[in-house]
Amino acid sequence: MTTKNLLVGQSGGPTAAINATLAGVISQAQISDKIGTVYGALNGIEGVMKETFVNLTESISNTEILHSLCQTPSAALGSCRYKLKDHNVCEEEYEKIVAIFRKYNIGYFVYIGGNDSMDTVMKLNQYFIRHQIHDIFIMGAPKTIDNDLMGTDHCPGFGSAAKYIAATFTELVCDTNAYMQKSVTIIEIMGRNAGWLTASSALARVNGGKGPDLIYLCERPFSCDQFLQDVRSKLEHQSSVLVAVSEGIHDENGVYISEQSQPGQTDNFGHKYIAGAARCLEELVRKKIRCKVRSIELNLMQRAAAHIASNTDLIESQMLGSKAVAAMLEGRSGEMSAIRRLDTEHYQIEFCSVPIEQIANQEKKVPLSWINEAGNDITPELMNYLLPLIQGEATVRYNNGIPIHLKL
Amino acid sequence: MTTKNLLVGQSGGPTAAINATLAGVISQAQISDKIGTVYGALNGIEGVMKETFVNLTESISNTEILHSLCQTPSAALGSCRYKLKDHNVCEEEYEKIVAIFRKYNIGYFVYIGGNDSMDTVMKLNQYFIRHQIHDIFIMGAPKTIDNDLMGTDHCPGFGSAAKYIAATFTELVCDTNAYMQKSVTIIEIMGRNAGWLTASSALARVNGGKGPDLIYLCERPFSCDQFLQDVRSKLEHQSSVLVAVSEGIHDENGVYISEQSQPGQTDNFGHKYIAGAARCLEELVRKKIRCKVRSIELNLMQRAAAHIASNTDLIESQMLGSKAVAAMLEGRSGEMSAIRRLDTEHYQIEFCSVPIEQIANQEKKVPLSWINEAGNDITPELMNYLLPLIQGEATVRYNNGIPIHLKL
Repeated sequence: MTTKNLLVGQSGGPTAAINATLAGVISQAQISDKIGTVYGALNGIEGVMKETFVNLTESISNTEILHSLCQTPSAALGSCRYKLKDHNVCEEEYEKIVAIFRKYNIGYFVYIGGNDSMDTVMKLNQYFIRHQIHDIFIMGAPKTIDNDLMGTDHCPGFGSAAKYIAATFTELVCDTNAYMQKSVTIIEIMGRNAGWLTASSALARVNGGKGPDLIYLCERPFSCDQFLQDVRSKLEHQSSVLVAVSEGIHDENGVYISEQSQPGQTDNFGHKYIAGAARCLEELVRKKIRCKVRSIELNLMQRAAAHIASNTDLIESQMLGSKAVAAMLEGRSGEMSAIRRLDTEHYQIEFCSVPIEQIANQEKKVPLSWINEAGNDITPELMNYLLPLIQGEATVRYNNGIPIHLKL
Repeated sequence: MTTKNLLVGQSGGPTAAINATLAGVISQAQISDKIGTVYGALNGIEGVMKETFVNLTESISNTEILHSLCQTPSAALGSCRYKLKDHNVCEEEYEKIVAIFRKYNIGYFVYIGGNDSMDTVMKLNQYFIRHQIHDIFIMGAPKTIDNDLMGTDHCPGFGSAAKYIAATFTELVCDTNAYMQKSVTIIEIMGRNAGWLTASSALARVNGGKGPDLIYLCERPFSCDQFLQDVRSKLEHQSSVLVAVSEGIHDENGVYISEQSQPGQTDNFGHKYIAGAARCLEELVRKKIRCKVRSIELNLMQRAAAHIASNTDLIESQMLGSKAVAAMLEGRSGEMSAIRRLDTEHYQIEFCSVPIEQIANQEKKVPLSWINEAGNDITPELMNYLLPLIQGEATVRYNNGIPIHLKL
């Protein structure tokens, strides 16, 4: 049997589970006779073009190291936000990539990332088809705390971020309720266009706790007047009000709440740089309601907090990495491994793979029917969707009092 | 034997371990024949004066509930920031408190809190002495994430906050190093006048990880020019620079870095309200160095993150609660239970109690000799002091994927 090597890269924003997917890729490759060496490209597709590879077959030499990899947050191989040029316009990058694949005898390429990264998979796949390259298989493996990928019930990394957010909200409920003084605490959660993570704050209520009092997702236009009215109404009956807001909340014209105070910066993919929604609302409350008010950004912690990863998320993430490899070994290419949730009473899923065109550059938002009528909370349907994803605690190994992380 | 009842209150800022101290008070009282009912005053000394008491002997009826109490962050009894008037000026409050103590047959009073709360213990004790009240014993039990109490080697709540900070830094190191792009991340840590918590960020290095690149404690005057020079120097050799700063960093004239941009608000104890040091430095880096820059406040999470509490901290916190009760049963009053670290090769402590006058209204800062010469890092001596305090992981119980918290 001719063996070919496998190359894997990671791309886009870090998560607590992207390395579990990497571990799934590595272990699945290790048990196949068709695959020789597993290489990792440092910093995604940029590392492919620069030939900065690590030999993962050598680095991840035992299950102990594999376990450490799984509990290491962020991208162990490093990440990038590089967008390939359109191959109709410029084929140079593609030729270079194929030449490097040939040089390293790469027959299998897995790219782990979100919707921007799936753009890379799609373009490469389209180039391969156009040039009749049939001996290099390419698959995407999903990853994003935003949970906004089409074609999959939910995304690796999301469950862990959701668990961190839910646990943090239960803790913040305890903290902010310690005083009798009237106070408002506004917590900003990641999510430009999709409010899945913000919705997860509601999970803080599952054990009967208070949780957030108000939840504003970016899917519904945000009104500052309505917000003030909602907060005032809550303050009539309780001393502490806890508010969850998506970073991407905006008015009905699409203008971000924070946009007035920040210059319009954009990243490589043309996304507007936004931050500070909670901070703007803090100022608003201070001026208009005049009570004690604090804003909190969960910031990078929500995507990096591997120490409180969801075990469900870690296991599924690993399986999705394995699935991407298994699919290629069965002859599939130009697809992304994905999760299908079955219509059963209890949470049950199966793994599948989905054509990449259905996924790249698209965003799956929270259905409006899963937001309550007042636009300041979520529905029980959304709670039911979210709850299974944060189940189980990762068995994190510590040394000297802090979690062990792997450095490749 | 005549039994008297015990009253306990919590005061000051919440921590992840203050309820462990409460648990220690309750369990020690439960095993003494001299103590009848254990009452908890809601919202500290304010609850004493309002007679808002809960019967803890009834509420904490089994060890299961006691365990849940230990893993619940913030103050289960609620907190306050109330300062008793000087009894030389106004005795009214003191007379009221004593009358309520008599009404409930209180012979033992434990107040769990920081240096402001110990002011309450001291004043009450001085009033008791002046009025020859010898049948009500009063003790303080320490608590503060700031670790700034005199008379004790370290403070309950600090170790857990330090563990959260160290673990979070290891995760943020992974996250911020994922990209090749030059970037600066500035993390603001609680501590107005004492940099113990900020110093704890260095613990992220104990397993050989990178940890923070620069650490600025509030004990040393902060120079923006020196800061920029330090950051530039680091950026020459690495892509990502991680900076830890105390919220209370200030220049050599005592002017907080953030003071220009914020109006001077003060709390009930006359402390200046400050926040946003990291945010100011973010702007500075953006303007002067012009690279990608982000500021992060660990905010309330650093004092509320019970899910990653230090087991050493939880056990010691519980013991200090028990010690406060044990000391009263042995006839001591007007003191605070405390920890003495022995001069041994391995970490070893003993529990003692210290006259309250040595503690109230004072602050223990990081010795200047434990800060490096350049003023941008800590010394190995400080690392040795900190490391034992974050050891061990609490066995946190979860339900439905989130930690179980007790609501009294």
